[in-house]
Amino acid sequence: MTKKGLLMVHTGNGKGKTTAALGLAFRALGHRLPVCIIQFIKGGWKYGELNSAERFAGLLDFHVVGEGFTWNSKDPEKDRRAAAEGWNLAKSVIAAGHHHLVILDEFTWAVRLGMVDQAEALEVLRTRPEGLHVLLTGRDASPSFLEIADLVTEMREVKHPYRTGIKAQKGIEW
Amino acid sequence: MTKKGLLMVHTGNGKGKTTAALGLAFRALGHRLPVCIIQFIKGGWKYGELNSAERFAGLLDFHVVGEGFTWNSKDPEKDRRAAAEGWNLAKSVIAAGHHHLVILDEFTWAVRLGMVDQAEALEVLRTRPEGLHVLLTGRDASPSFLEIADLVTEMREVKHPYRTGIKAQKGIEW
Repeated sequence: MTKKGLLMVHTGNGKGKTTAALGLAFRALGHRLPVCIIQFIKGGWKYGELNSAERFAGLLDFHVVGEGFTWNSKDPEKDRRAAAEGWNLAKSVIAAGHHHLVILDEFTWAVRLGMVDQAEALEVLRTRPEGLHVLLTGRDASPSFLEIADLVTEMREVKHPYRTGIKAQKGIEW
Repeated sequence: MTKKGLLMVHTGNGKGKTTAALGLAFRALGHRLPVCIIQFIKGGWKYGELNSAERFAGLLDFHVVGEGFTWNSKDPEKDRRAAAEGWNLAKSVIAAGHHHLVILDEFTWAVRLGMVDQAEALEVLRTRPEGLHVLLTGRDASPSFLEIADLVTEMREVKHPYRTGIKAQKGIEW
């Protein structure tokens, strides 16, 4: 059995992709291992996790890029700039190799929407520093990422409360 | 749209069930909403999350019952007592309704192994205080729990590093 930095993917149409990423971050932080989270899409939201993150100052770097969900955006060019900025940040963080775990949250959207070049992303992930764990989240991850990943979990929606008219709630969805 | 306490289930054979539960806990804690986690099976493990939990003293109640994975147990009777103790604790925590979210981690095992009575568990969950969110995790959740749940996510294993000879690592699996 060997020890190595894992490339992990949380994909699928169900809940829990980002939430499991947060859980993984807090697990690592509990060992005092540094974590970097870069959120690519959900910038406009207020998160409970942002407040929790403050308790781990110095260990957790939390970056939010973008101004909100792209499918609601009134300014796609602004989103594109934000995604490019996030990707540049991700590349430098990955190259530095300082963190135990780098989480690129909702990164699959940035690729699928053509905001990040897939071939470049695959190359950056493949050639990352040995020992660095990277986790990508988001629906519809491209098969090319699944191919080079060590761990892939599909979060599959079996039942969702929105379907029965229950709205998103504080401390659950955000 | 109505607001209500959700019954949530994370099931399936993939990773991320407990990890997403932890993420949900930390999200709620970020809002300063109290959370109770009762771990039914994994008692013998040392978790990064236990250390992270210490940063939320007064908001997060973390209880570990049992002495380790039951399928490795040398003393099933001891496990059975631990499960019963955990279930009694869960019932009183649920009835008190003090928390925003109660997480019964690996609870499906306790039911499937006959350590907790399923009919009683269903009744306790169905008649819980309004507004209380409860999350059950574990493989092979019984269809009866899925039926009364508001939200069910199946974490499906697509690719797992153990399959390629990579061992469990600090800050990732524990």
